[in-house]
Formats: sequence, structure tokens, C-alpha cells
Amino acid sequence: MTTPIDEWIDASRERALAELKEFLAIPSISAEPARRGDVQRAAEWVAGRLEAAGMRNVTINPTPGHPVVSAEWLEATGRPTVLVYGHYDVQPADPLELWSSPPFEPVTRDGRIYARGVSDDKAPVFTVIKTIQALLDQRGQLPVNLKVLFEGEEETGSPNLESFIAANRQLLAADLIISADGGMASDSQPSMNLSGRGICALEVTVSGPGRDLHSGRHGGAVQNPLHALAELIAGLHDERGRVAVNGFYEGVRELSGAERAELGRSPRDEAAYARELGVEALWGEAGYTSLERETVRPTLEVNGLWGGYQGPGPKTVIPAAANAKITCRLVHDQDPDQVIAAVERHLNERVPPGVRLAITPIAGKARAYEVPGDLPALAIAEEVLREFFGKPPLRVRMGGSVPVTEVFARVLGAQTVFFSFSVADENIHSPNEFFREERLWLGQRAWARYLDRLGAGIT
Amino acid sequence: MTTPIDEWIDASRERALAELKEFLAIPSISAEPARRGDVQRAAEWVAGRLEAAGMRNVTINPTPGHPVVSAEWLEATGRPTVLVYGHYDVQPADPLELWSSPPFEPVTRDGRIYARGVSDDKAPVFTVIKTIQALLDQRGQLPVNLKVLFEGEEETGSPNLESFIAANRQLLAADLIISADGGMASDSQPSMNLSGRGICALEVTVSGPGRDLHSGRHGGAVQNPLHALAELIAGLHDERGRVAVNGFYEGVRELSGAERAELGRSPRDEAAYARELGVEALWGEAGYTSLERETVRPTLEVNGLWGGYQGPGPKTVIPAAANAKITCRLVHDQDPDQVIAAVERHLNERVPPGVRLAITPIAGKARAYEVPGDLPALAIAEEVLREFFGKPPLRVRMGGSVPVTEVFARVLGAQTVFFSFSVADENIHSPNEFFREERLWLGQRAWARYLDRLGAGIT
Repeated sequence: MTTPIDEWIDASRERALAELKEFLAIPSISAEPARRGDVQRAAEWVAGRLEAAGMRNVTINPTPGHPVVSAEWLEATGRPTVLVYGHYDVQPADPLELWSSPPFEPVTRDGRIYARGVSDDKAPVFTVIKTIQALLDQRGQLPVNLKVLFEGEEETGSPNLESFIAANRQLLAADLIISADGGMASDSQPSMNLSGRGICALEVTVSGPGRDLHSGRHGGAVQNPLHALAELIAGLHDERGRVAVNGFYEGVRELSGAERAELGRSPRDEAAYARELGVEALWGEAGYTSLERETVRPTLEVNGLWGGYQGPGPKTVIPAAANAKITCRLVHDQDPDQVIAAVERHLNERVPPGVRLAITPIAGKARAYEVPGDLPALAIAEEVLREFFGKPPLRVRMGGSVPVTEVFARVLGAQTVFFSFSVADENIHSPNEFFREERLWLGQRAWARYLDRLGAGIT
Repeated sequence: MTTPIDEWIDASRERALAELKEFLAIPSISAEPARRGDVQRAAEWVAGRLEAAGMRNVTINPTPGHPVVSAEWLEATGRPTVLVYGHYDVQPADPLELWSSPPFEPVTRDGRIYARGVSDDKAPVFTVIKTIQALLDQRGQLPVNLKVLFEGEEETGSPNLESFIAANRQLLAADLIISADGGMASDSQPSMNLSGRGICALEVTVSGPGRDLHSGRHGGAVQNPLHALAELIAGLHDERGRVAVNGFYEGVRELSGAERAELGRSPRDEAAYARELGVEALWGEAGYTSLERETVRPTLEVNGLWGGYQGPGPKTVIPAAANAKITCRLVHDQDPDQVIAAVERHLNERVPPGVRLAITPIAGKARAYEVPGDLPALAIAEEVLREFFGKPPLRVRMGGSVPVTEVFARVLGAQTVFFSFSVADENIHSPNEFFREERLWLGQRAWARYLDRLGAGIT
């Protein structure tokens, strides 16, 4: 059965694709200071589309970092209020040489749109905007009171979002949050995210000599900062893949048999998964499946490590300093500040002789979040997905973090349902990120139906 | 007493400085493929100056890498034949931001000429050329039969020099080699180098996933190549600063009491040396002084280490690969090939689970070299230095490597005396490399006198 909304969505495909590609062409990389103007431009683009869709009070709210775009439509008297969350910023695009086409020149190949940020999170955000436009254009009204909050700092850990939310409780008050950030585990099997891991980040600098030294002339006389850093990094895990930092696992609950069984329902062939990731064998904390390690166990990962000469050929140097970037993923009741403090303590107690250590916490930290399994809006979302995919969605857990979900629960008192049509295999944060075009149209239809059902009553 | 040669040197100062600055402006960085044309240009510049000085058979000899410039003047019948060695290539200039003036725009400040390569080895090479010019211009002849060999690959380990020398034994045959590469330990105290360490180099790549992975989504499922590399690097030394590689110390002799005493004659205040290098404390292999560790003990140093994200802010990535560049400095009878094999074996036996290891030996390796302490030409050089500095030179040992010295001894059967007027504090291989202008004039006078004495009879 085709609804007038479906017809509107189908008729506007060409225009929608052209608009989305405009959005994708803006290199809104929040981590790079030089892209500040582009991030602002992306905020303005989103605001313009929300205006065009018919939203009211569209506002580009400045923050100490990148702006938050907000808007609302509150004329559904007596209906619930829903706040939609998403982000318009994207990850850095390097290494550029591994992209088949330039990251900010979107192209469609084999039904897939390739561009940095298309899956995380521009196409999902755009899907929401077009759904609103379809509904208001067709009916002149929305089935719920709708608010949107699209931020520009998700990829740098949302350092200013919590204070923005705390300062705008009234503006953002809602019965339910729907996150357009998230995504499904598989193309063929719909899924609902039940949780996201928390995060904290730090940067480590080991300083040795006051300048780069000739390693022939001075080699042997001083501690090499690269050796010292390697020793420090190597000491962060034990030989069974467990984080060796005292206090790191505080607040982590052991899994119950029921939890493990529920996770085990998601199909994962470990050998096929290893092939997909391009490794000969998976590896991680002993005693857990790879899916458990990715979703309900905490991790500490070095994301970058550098020092000394990286160019062609040799350069015989002992560098003045060596650096590492580290992020931890947190679960259950782990406290980001306590984890940072534990890692700092661990490293400070192990500084090799002859070097100095400086540790800088990187802005943007969040506790883990878990949506209550009996939330009515969750069941409604699952029913909508079942209708569109012809089978019930699996309940899954996310390895990544959507830090704001925990803030929504704590500050606004509202739970978050993840409702996104991106898929886990779409190379987010990697070269050749893509999004399945077909899911733009499916996504709009599904969003329209979900909002209709919520409008009919969340309970 | 001022000689006509001294007068010539003084009268040509201005022209000499202008010429040297031309030489310094050529960015002849042998390690960077993009600089190939500049290295060639530097070879042509040196050849032009040798022609102008009056040398014969000036030739730019091609090699599979950068060319060797050779020349000769063989009309001192019955006199000894001396081959002068030096190099016209320079180290890379990064990190550029730490230079007070651009590395290839030479400037003089407070009697010091600042430029990449000025101390290592362009000013010393230029000193030799101007000495030849002074002698031939003033007298129409040289006191010895003179050959020169200026190479363009010293800073990349002279990968093609040994085969060039082996293929040109007749062209290069000499009674003595004098190296214009080397330098003195102190500005105020003349010194003679007795030895240089050998060298070998390798590059290590740890490969994990087939592409950079999102560390939230996949963190915990795979071995992180940065963790694996850190573990491998950390395992290369023990906690007392000794290289932990089985077989690494094969061929290293323990120092005799006499050797230690001779080294101890060089004055070194360890606290002042630590301050000079900018470290709170020196550090290295237990049981040896810093001078011993730098000159007569072997080392293994990581010169570069990198992988993952190095930009501003966070990027939550598990990189596909991690890399390290390593050089070892060798002493006594250590064999570079055996050391590389030992390090490879050590690393291969310790590859952490879930990653692959690739090790590439980097071209350019050399055994250590030691000049016989009773070589007559050494005593003559020491006497010349005593006359110019007013005190006898200390006999010292070099931490760095002049790989060709060992090749000269083995292939040409000739020993090498180091005769250079650069000083150890001139920031070679570091930002703000400089050379003391005054030593251009001192160096020419001393070279002229040394060649005169050698011409009078080496024995």
C-alpha cells in the first residue's frame, strides 16, 4: 500500500539527492581548527533545510566550539513531544590516498553514495529533515510535537553539548529522544541498539632531550623518548589482552548468563568477521567473544603514536619528544574521570628514567548509556522495523559512543531510542565511507510511520 | 708568522663566504627522492669549484644513487698520494618550525653560519677545496699527490660507495686517506678521532586490520598494531638499558683498564652535559660512563615511530599498520648483517597475536673503524693541531659513523685520519645547524700545513 507520504518521497528523490550531495560536499570536520568555517557552513545549510521543511524557531546556537542547530514544531496539542538528535560534523578524511574518490566530492556507485560523513551522520540527519518536509507538505501538520537538536561536535566528543543542554532544559524538554545517530549491525537483518559505550580520551607526551639529537653522536647517553613511550604503552595491557591499569575495571559488571545469551542471538561467524576486518585472527581480552569485547567490555586503545623521523630513508635522530593519543570505551557504571585518573596514575608511576611525562585529558567524555528494555517507544520502533523488513529486529549493543544519550537521560530525564538506517559496514571513520541510497527512501517512510505511531500514543 | 698562503686565504675571505653560501643554498637532501635534482646540482657545484681550484680529471661519476665527485692532481713526483674524503649531501631539515632562519637560506649571526649541512659536511669540504686553490694559485703545485672523493649519499648510509670504490681501486689508490668528515669534540680543546662506530638500519611494519577501523565499533575485537609495535619496541631493551637481543653483543670487546683510562682523559662533566642536552639526567646501559656508551659501546635506537592519527583533537581509529625506523651503532668486530639478523630473529619470535610483522633492512651498513694509534700520519696531524691551538689534541672516539673509513681500510688498504674543523655542538642533524666562520680560515691554514708536512714524508 502506497501512502501519499510515500508518493511525496518517491517524487522528490532527484531533488533530495541533489540536496544531500550539497550537504556532503561541505568538509565539516569538527576536529580540524582550519575547518571551522566549513563546520559553520554546514550548520547554516542544515538550518536552511529545516526552514524549508517548515520547522519553526530554527536557530543556530553558538557555543564555545561549533554551533548547535535547533528547531521545533509544537502544534500537535495533546500529543507527545519528541526530540530528534543527530550531528552534522564529520571525521577527518585522512588517509586521503586510500579513498577511491575524493571524500568531499560525493559520487554514487552501485547504489551507494560515497563521501566522508554520509553514513555518520549526514544521510541519517537528512532523512529526518526530508521526513518532516514530506509530512508538513502533505498534511500541513506533524503527528507529534517535534524538536530537533543537530550538533557539530559529535566527532570530537561533544565537549560543549552537555552545558548547552543544561542551559536549555525548557527549549529541549521532551517525552522521548530519538537518535538519528547509531545504525544497524547488518544490511539484511534489522536491529535495535540497546546501549552505547562511554568514552574518555587523553594525550600523552614523553619529553627527553631539549632538541632532536644525532643518534650516532649521542646515542647511548640519554633515554630515547620513543623507547620510553613504547614501554609505557606496552604496560597498559597484560598478555591476555586485559587492561593492566589498577582500578580501570571499577564499575564494570560481569555479564549474567541471560545477558550473554541475548548477545549470542546476534549471528556472528568469527572467521568471517576476521576476514571482513582483514585480520588473520581476532584478538582481545581473554574469556569473551569478540562481540562481547566490542560492546559490553571496556577497552583502552591507542589511536595514534608518533615521534622522530617518518620520511623516506633513514634519519639518525633521537627525537626530543614522543606522543600518543588514547581513548577508552566504557561500560556500565565506569566513571570517565576516574578512568582518566587511573590511567594517569598508572603511567606516572611507570615513567622510565631520563624522560618527563605530560598527560592531557582531551575534552569530550561520557558514561555508557543503556535504554530500558521495557520502554514503550522501543517496542513501537521494533514493530515499525518488523513491518518494513518483514522480520523482527534483533536487540543489539553498540561498541561506539553517542555520549549525549547519557546526558539526555540525566539532564532532561528522557530516554533515547536509536532509529537510524545506516549500516555497520559502511566504513565510517575510514576511507571510502558510504551509505546505501535505497535506505534514504526506506528511512523516510519508516520515520514517517514511527512518528505517526508515537503520535497515536507512546504508552 | 704569516705565509703567502695565509695571505691568500685572508684576501679571499669575502669571495669564499659568497661561494660557500651558494653551496649551502642547494638543498642536497640525499634521503628525499624529490631532492634528487638538488643533490645532482650540489655535485655539479662541487665539480665546478674543484675545476676552478685547479684540480685535474674532475668527474661526476654516476652511481645507482647519487653521484660521486672525484678529481686528482698527481704531479708531485716521488711524494705520497693522499685521498681526501667528504660528502656534499645533507640531512633532511625537518622539523622546519624549529629553525630560527630557513635551513637553505644561509645567514651569519655572531660569527656563526647557520644552514642545514654547513657543519656536516659542506664547510669542511669547502675548506679542502679552498686550500687546494690557495696552494695551486700561490705555488702552482701541491706538496703531495692529491685525490678527492666527495660522495652524495653519506646521510643515507653510503649504499653505493663501497661498490664504487671496489670498481675504482686504481683511480682511488692512495697511501693515506684524510676525512674532512668528523669534527672535534670541543671548541676550545683540539681533538683527534681514533674511531667511529659502525651502523646498520632497519624498518619495521606491524600490520593488523585491512583498513583503519573505528575504535568504538571494533575496539576489543582485534589486536591494535600500535599496541603490538609498542610491545615489540619495549622488548628490545632490558630495564638496565642493555639491548635485550640475543647475539647483539657478539664481537663487542669489554674495555680494558687502559682504554677506559684513555677515554677518561677527555673532560666531561656529566651534569653539565645533561644540561647541554636538555635532560634532567643522562641514562643508558648500566656500568658505563655516558662517554663510553656513546663511543665504545653499541646501541639500538628507534629513530622514528608512527601510526594512526596525529592531527589535532581525537580520531577514534585503530590503524591498519604501525611503523618504526631503527638504527644500531656498532663497535669492534660486530657484523652489521649478523646484528640485523639477530634483531629480526628477536622481533619475529615475539610478534603479538593478531598482527603480521615485516622487517626491511635499510641500505647502508658499515662495520666500526679504528685508526691504528701508531700511524705516522696521525702523529703529524696531532703536531699540526698542537701548533695551531697551542696545546696537544686529545685522542677521542666518535659516536657517529663514517662508514667509508672501514671500506677504505678493507678495499684500498689505506688508513684514515680525521681532519675536520667542525665542532660537536654545531647541531648537526638538528634544527639550527651552524659552523664557526673563524674555522673556515683556521681550517684552510691547518690543511695547507698538514699537506706540506705529509709531502715532506709520512714516515
